[in-house]
Amino acid sequence: MINGHGDDLFHYKHLIKSNFSSNVYNRIEHEELFERLSNKLYLLSNYPEPEPLSLETAFANFYHVEADCVCVTNGATEGIYLIAQTFKGKKSAVWMPTFSEYADACRLHGHRVSAFYTYDSVPADADLVWLCNPNNPTGEVRDYQRMKEWIGAHPDKLFVIDQSYESFTFKRLFSVSEVAALPNVILIHSLTKHFAIPGLRMGYLTGNAKLMKEIRLQRMPWSVNSLAIEAGFFALEKNLELSINLREYLDTKEKFVKELKRTGIVDVWDSDTHFFLVKLRMGKASALKEYLAEEHGILIRNASNFEGLDESFFRLATQTEEENQALVKALSDWMACI
Amino acid sequence: MINGHGDDLFHYKHLIKSNFSSNVYNRIEHEELFERLSNKLYLLSNYPEPEPLSLETAFANFYHVEADCVCVTNGATEGIYLIAQTFKGKKSAVWMPTFSEYADACRLHGHRVSAFYTYDSVPADADLVWLCNPNNPTGEVRDYQRMKEWIGAHPDKLFVIDQSYESFTFKRLFSVSEVAALPNVILIHSLTKHFAIPGLRMGYLTGNAKLMKEIRLQRMPWSVNSLAIEAGFFALEKNLELSINLREYLDTKEKFVKELKRTGIVDVWDSDTHFFLVKLRMGKASALKEYLAEEHGILIRNASNFEGLDESFFRLATQTEEENQALVKALSDWMACI
Repeated sequence: MINGHGDDLFHYKHLIKSNFSSNVYNRIEHEELFERLSNKLYLLSNYPEPEPLSLETAFANFYHVEADCVCVTNGATEGIYLIAQTFKGKKSAVWMPTFSEYADACRLHGHRVSAFYTYDSVPADADLVWLCNPNNPTGEVRDYQRMKEWIGAHPDKLFVIDQSYESFTFKRLFSVSEVAALPNVILIHSLTKHFAIPGLRMGYLTGNAKLMKEIRLQRMPWSVNSLAIEAGFFALEKNLELSINLREYLDTKEKFVKELKRTGIVDVWDSDTHFFLVKLRMGKASALKEYLAEEHGILIRNASNFEGLDESFFRLATQTEEENQALVKALSDWMACI
Repeated sequence: MINGHGDDLFHYKHLIKSNFSSNVYNRIEHEELFERLSNKLYLLSNYPEPEPLSLETAFANFYHVEADCVCVTNGATEGIYLIAQTFKGKKSAVWMPTFSEYADACRLHGHRVSAFYTYDSVPADADLVWLCNPNNPTGEVRDYQRMKEWIGAHPDKLFVIDQSYESFTFKRLFSVSEVAALPNVILIHSLTKHFAIPGLRMGYLTGNAKLMKEIRLQRMPWSVNSLAIEAGFFALEKNLELSINLREYLDTKEKFVKELKRTGIVDVWDSDTHFFLVKLRMGKASALKEYLAEEHGILIRNASNFEGLDESFFRLATQTEEENQALVKALSDWMACI
């Protein structure tokens, strides 16, 4: 693992009032889930299933695919590491800038890792192609039709698409039933983001049965804790529906972006979801981050350690209107100081 | 993972009244821990530390060793798999019969795995030597002095000692401060067993700082969930003290063993902890297991899939006196039927 992931809230415990640094939206309703978990703590007294087959079957039924097409994991992160381990020593190409764990996991398992930045520049000899969609940190969703053609044109490559943020966009994405029938696509999913429960560690992979069987062979027993499994069942009872109105939330984002642009201090990248990249026209994101934490109790994500980005970049996840406005004001204050 | 671990309670959900199949003693007091966890569910709303460094430091302070000497894991199982991964492709010798995960983890990571059964028969070319102490499934604790000499006589080998059941014996075991100063020993620890919370997944490794640093490099971020970390802090506040009177519990075990022997149906292996192996003089453990589950709501661990044991073996973990007596009676009933 590299240093410098988002949500380093634990470093600043007593200072922070507003946390823009994590892509996990902290206004997602948890109360009902927490009440359920609270009533199910007795589950901790027994081992979870060595392999979470019951939950995998439930997900498969929900998506109308064979049970073998789902692999439940200890957070989406375990999914990433299991894929890297299953294909150890291969050549992996990662569409940058993106989440650093794809490259980290691949390097740990002996892959030769390269970066690419456009559809046309994916290395010809890559065995695996990794991308995030919606992409972290840019928030961009790749065009569905173009992606489909691109993947179809490269039957020799395995495409790993991290859809962790799939609940937070209206753009068309690959569906589980679609990839279950494709020979060369794996989707990564995250309940962490959907329910805003990153502390619980719950994710899953989907793909064709043969691929998923190979990956499950690499998974250690009992990797998924009993409460995470319970949260998975809860999510399915709710039909994986989001507890907030996404349209309103993305409207709030649009307003936030406009206000940021209006300051004249930053450029904002177009995003198809609730988080987005911001580039300072002057100064460094690291200095801004310290200033906002110390002076305003606001935490942002310094994005300069994403490969392909420089030290002027930071990432914001939309919060409430009041918090967004407070950030815009604090940013102007900072500009007046430097 | 092989099939057939203990605590397959999830297969029999509605039938079982008494569960002797798991080495996790289910009368361990959880109420205070569960109340704590219930009040800390809000921790699930943020990511845990990517590496659980705060808890590692707290464990290190408790044991009076450097912080680098502790590696907290997603259950002891992740510890086993991380060690196997760190030393991938090596030669591993496993002291049998024992928990199957050592060999499974080693095979997954390309080790050449061999079995041995006595101090003197450990293969000369083994790089790693794995043993469990107290041993699962036998409950035996190896003589401390003899082990120390044995390890000292093999400075070329790394000894991995799983002390998951360390809280359940009065026999002398290796201490954390002792192995932190040794070049070639890793201890595996489990809060799962200590607090009877196998559903939560919380374990840790200890050893010298150099070894632990190597292993931590293999650990994926966020592998340990926020509630497991909280349980770790709770355990330290309690000075890792057991909530039951171990002397009384082991006395109950002695009485249970005597009653089992008195039936004349079985041989019982000597054990230094609360669980032990039983060998049927006639019949198969698999048939007995089905009979006890179906007719008496009692779950036992068929131990015939432990390497080195045959189909007459099963394992019992001591329960309450009433439950123990019910099992003894049910065993006699079975013998009368076959």
